[in-house]
Amino acid sequence: MEREEGKVTDVSLKELSRKLEEFSKERDWGQYHSPRNLLLAMVGEVGELSEIFMWRGEVAKGLPNWKESDKEHLGEELSDVLLYLIQLADICGIDLADAATKKIIKNAIKYPPKSQ
Amino acid sequence: MEREEGKVTDVSLKELSRKLEEFSKERDWGQYHSPRNLLLAMVGEVGELSEIFMWRGEVAKGLPNWKESDKEHLGEELSDVLLYLIQLADICGIDLADAATKKIIKNAIKYPPKSQ
Amino acid sequence: MEREEGKVTDVSLKELSRKLEEFSKERDWGQYHSPRNLLLAMVGEVGELSEIFMWRGEVAKGLPNWKESDKEHLGEELSDVLLYLIQLADICGIDLADAATKKIIKNAIKYPPKSQ
Amino acid sequence: MEREEGKVTDVSLKELSRKLEEFSKERDWGQYHSPRNLLLAMVGEVGELSEIFMWRGEVAKGLPNWKESDKEHLGEELSDVLLYLIQLADICGIDLADAATKKIIKNAIKYPPKSQ
Repeated sequence: MEREEGKVTDVSLKELSRKLEEFSKERDWGQYHSPRNLLLAMVGEVGELSEIFMWRGEVAKGLPNWKESDKEHLGEELSDVLLYLIQLADICGIDLADAATKKIIKNAIKYPPKSQ
Repeated sequence: MEREEGKVTDVSLKELSRKLEEFSKERDWGQYHSPRNLLLAMVGEVGELSEIFMWRGEVAKGLPNWKESDKEHLGEELSDVLLYLIQLADICGIDLADAATKKIIKNAIKYPPKSQ
Repeated sequence: MEREEGKVTDVSLKELSRKLEEFSKERDWGQYHSPRNLLLAMVGEVGELSEIFMWRGEVAKGLPNWKESDKEHLGEELSDVLLYLIQLADICGIDLADAATKKIIKNAIKYPPKSQ
Repeated sequence: MEREEGKVTDVSLKELSRKLEEFSKERDWGQYHSPRNLLLAMVGEVGELSEIFMWRGEVAKGLPNWKESDKEHLGEELSDVLLYLIQLADICGIDLADAATKKIIKNAIKYPPKSQ
C-alpha cells in the first residue's frame, strides 16, 4: 500500500499476497487452506456479495441513493472475494499478477478495438 | 505492471483498473457494464473456475501432477474472476484497494493472532 | 406432497411451484420476483450452501460424523437453492419438470451407457 | 413423470432421484460423485445459468422477446442446476423432498402473511 500525494491508496496483488500469508501464518490457518477449501470459501463470499444486490432490481452506476453503510458493506464483500481469490491463486502456485496482466493482453488480441 | 530485477511481475489494483477502463473505452463496452451485469459475468467466471476443480477430489497445494496447460487455464479463470471483480468495484464507485487494505486490518482485530 | 405408507415423503416440482406461488401471493412478494432478482437470491443461497462445506476438506458420502444439526442446516440450504430455482423457472415461464425430464433423456443420448 | 390429461408434465423429486441414480449406475459415474465434487459441478452450472442473464440488463417476467432457442437453453441450464442439486442431496443422505416441504412451512411461520 502506498499513499501517493497523501490521497490515493493503492496496493499491489503481491503486497496483498504477503499480507495474507503473514496473517494466515500468525493464526496457524494454513492447515485449512487447501485449494478446494479456499475455492468454496470464495463461492461463499460471492453469495454474500450477490445478496447485497438481490432485491434491488437494476442498480445505477455509482450507486446513487445507496446508504453509506450499504456501500461500506459492499466494499467489504468485494474485498472478501478478492482476498480468497488471491489466497486460492497463491496456494495453487499461480502468479495472479502475471496471469491477469497476460489475460488482458490476450483479450486485447481476441477482441480488437473498434476501428475509427 | 513493474518488472523488479527483471524477474517478478507485480501489478496494483489501480493499474488493473486503468487498463480495464481503457480496454472497455476502446471497444465501447461501457454500455454493458452495469453493476448487476458485471456481477453476473463474475458469477459466470466463478462457475468456470469451479469446473476446473469439480471432478478432481481434493487437490494438493501447488497442484502437483497437473498438466501445464491445466495450470495455464486455471490462471486464466482466476484472472477472469479478478478482472470482473475490479470492474464491478469500479462501476460501483468502490475503492477496492482501500477496502481490501482496511478489511485485512479489520480481520486482524476480529481474529487476534494466537498468543505464544 | 404425499405420504405413502406413512413413511416416504415425496413432492413434485409443480406442487412446490403451487405452494411457492401461494406463499408469495399471500405476502405480496411478487413485486420483488423479477428473473435477475431471483437468480441473485439463488446465488446467495449457493454461497450459504458452499459455506457449509468450505473448511471440511473432502466429505464422505452419507456425511458420517456430521452432527444432526449440521445435516439439518444442510437440508435447509439445499432447499433454499431449490425453492429459488423453481421460482426462477416459473417467473421465466420455463416448465422445469418438462425441461429436467428432457435433459435427462438428452444426456442419455449424449453419454451412452457403458457397453458390457 | 406423469402426463395428466395428456397435457401437463410433472415429475417428483424422488422420481428424478431414481432416474439420476440409474443413469449414474449405468455409466459407472458414482466414483466421481462425492459431495464436494457434485457441489462444484452445481456451482459450474450456476455460472452457466448466470451467463445467460449477464449482458441483458433487467429481464421482464415471462421473457418476452427472447428467442425460442434462448428459452430452451435456459431450460437446460436450470435443469442442470436442479439435477446436480438432487444428486448432491442424495449423496449426502438428505431427503430433499422432505427438507423442502418443511422449509416452506418454516418460512411460513417466520414470515407471517400480511393481515388484511
